[in-house]
Amino acid sequence: MAESPTTTIRFGILGCADIARKVSRAITLSPNSTLHAIGSRSIDKARSYAKSNNFHPSTKVYGSYDEVLNDPDVDAVYVPLPTSLHLHWAVRAAEKKKHILVEKPPALNVKELDVILNACDTNGVQFMDGTMWMHHPRTQMMADFLADTQRFGQLKAVQSAFTFAVDHDFLQNDIRVKPDLDGLGALGDAGWYCIRACLWAANYELPKFVTALRNPTKNDAGVLLSCDASLHWEDGKVATFNCSFLSNLTMDLTAIGTKGTLHLNDFIIPYKEAEASYSTVSEAGFTDMDLEWNQKPSEHIVSTDIPQEVRMVKEFSALVDGIKRGLAPVKKWPMLSRKTQIVIDAVIASIDKGFEPVEVID
Amino acid sequence: MAESPTTTIRFGILGCADIARKVSRAITLSPNSTLHAIGSRSIDKARSYAKSNNFHPSTKVYGSYDEVLNDPDVDAVYVPLPTSLHLHWAVRAAEKKKHILVEKPPALNVKELDVILNACDTNGVQFMDGTMWMHHPRTQMMADFLADTQRFGQLKAVQSAFTFAVDHDFLQNDIRVKPDLDGLGALGDAGWYCIRACLWAANYELPKFVTALRNPTKNDAGVLLSCDASLHWEDGKVATFNCSFLSNLTMDLTAIGTKGTLHLNDFIIPYKEAEASYSTVSEAGFTDMDLEWNQKPSEHIVSTDIPQEVRMVKEFSALVDGIKRGLAPVKKWPMLSRKTQIVIDAVIASIDKGFEPVEVID
Repeated sequence: MAESPTTTIRFGILGCADIARKVSRAITLSPNSTLHAIGSRSIDKARSYAKSNNFHPSTKVYGSYDEVLNDPDVDAVYVPLPTSLHLHWAVRAAEKKKHILVEKPPALNVKELDVILNACDTNGVQFMDGTMWMHHPRTQMMADFLADTQRFGQLKAVQSAFTFAVDHDFLQNDIRVKPDLDGLGALGDAGWYCIRACLWAANYELPKFVTALRNPTKNDAGVLLSCDASLHWEDGKVATFNCSFLSNLTMDLTAIGTKGTLHLNDFIIPYKEAEASYSTVSEAGFTDMDLEWNQKPSEHIVSTDIPQEVRMVKEFSALVDGIKRGLAPVKKWPMLSRKTQIVIDAVIASIDKGFEPVEVID
Repeated sequence: MAESPTTTIRFGILGCADIARKVSRAITLSPNSTLHAIGSRSIDKARSYAKSNNFHPSTKVYGSYDEVLNDPDVDAVYVPLPTSLHLHWAVRAAEKKKHILVEKPPALNVKELDVILNACDTNGVQFMDGTMWMHHPRTQMMADFLADTQRFGQLKAVQSAFTFAVDHDFLQNDIRVKPDLDGLGALGDAGWYCIRACLWAANYELPKFVTALRNPTKNDAGVLLSCDASLHWEDGKVATFNCSFLSNLTMDLTAIGTKGTLHLNDFIIPYKEAEASYSTVSEAGFTDMDLEWNQKPSEHIVSTDIPQEVRMVKEFSALVDGIKRGLAPVKKWPMLSRKTQIVIDAVIASIDKGFEPVEVID
């Protein structure tokens, strides 16, 4: 491809999802991107959405997703559609040479995801899912701690939870409880983050097998409202997670190593936008007679002038710019999506097999 | 029994365990108890132990456990012997009408424990296990939070971990890795606390079934060095825990309700003796566009002039004093020991049955 004189990546958004309010703000705030277009199946809905979210008057408003994809000025699309529509629209976007930032879960299963990723490969476009916390500077600092054989040692256990209490309307009407829209329910929505966190803590090594814990909660249509699972690695380390639409907002991640422990309780969305923290402790023990600890964990504060979702858009846009300048798409992001989706598939398979362990195959 | 003019309970200690250093200090610090005697199979060891721990010169030093039990001035015994010896010595102590404070786990299984508890019943003596954190004032404050239907709602999930990294000598020589001494290994030692915490959070309702997670770590003699398990209640709530001798010191307890969440990372031994804390959050949510949380969890600080193990001894001694004054032994404490032991048994049974779920029967 020819070098582009501009480094500003022009985004089109497919659909008027609530999460697109946050990401459209991020596209606007990111220095290397701009919101070029939004499309909805209803032009009226798109107009109303653009107005109520104060989109710049120059933002194109389309009455179909195809018009967004056919706009030659759109470099990349953000796809916050229901998961069941990702396959169709992501492939179509890739065929139109649009780079793809897609909400999680990126697909209903890894088979569908592979069709999307193959389309991205074939068409030379960048793929990234919308797991924002991966882009917070805190995440890299915590990864440095986990990689430190002196301070953390070898990972032995992970415990994670992502729960939030939805209301009656959500349980009746949200796309995340509809089998034909987001059929993965709480596992695809909340569990996605826990699974990504477990993989992240394990330096992205896939577990050997996965077991769903018994008695998940499903709605009448069979969609998961809450579930637990355990991930088991070859070397014996174990991760467990709890995800739910039915409990108070909780976002826990604990990683326990042979020499250190990492704790945080807001790993997906930090308590505060401008300042996040995490806690570490290394080689903890007791004072004489085990009366008290020999140290308290250290709280590490990470100030952030750029919110994590803006960093995500900035990173994605920089990769797109690189591709425009002749670089290849970066494989890391589709790889992370794919590994997470593989584990999602294994949890579903374990539930379907009566909670038997399911081997994880890459 | 006749009323006793004294309210000071005279303790005898069976054996020179390391943990007895902490409890003998607690017996001395508690206003209603005194350390009357210590016995060891070796009189020299007992003398040396009494000296190095600055026991009052009036403390009787015996060269056998039986001499402690035969001392008519001993009201109560503290039993920190290896678990496999609890059955014999606790029953013998009860037969000698000594009240019993026993280290956890109180027995190798509930069948043995029931023999001990029957002996206590028959002889009218108080039984209590040495789970110190139950007696911290923080514990009652946290229980009040969990019982609050407005602030916490209904319990949905518990995650707990108690791990500590032992050294080479421990892995070779400690009684907790010896099948004939503390055959329950990390489950009986560390897992005991996690299970008690799960039961405590569930208001001591026993789970319907328990499943051990796959691939626990055992030593060559078959003793558990680390394991995970899940507890499942009738109403669908789930607790998971991780216990280990092979990871950095970690003491986590998270309870997630429909409306609130409780967090603490030092539930067994507080970071500091004089001041402990815990964190709660109720009806947490996000600000507009999910940019950040609408609140941070609240940290609650609990000052303690009396350490939890001193409170334990004080509570136990007060119950013994009550019995001396004609009251009946309090059933709460043996009930808590028994429920915890029932779950321990179920975890072991699940491991033995290839990680199948094991029904919990009271």
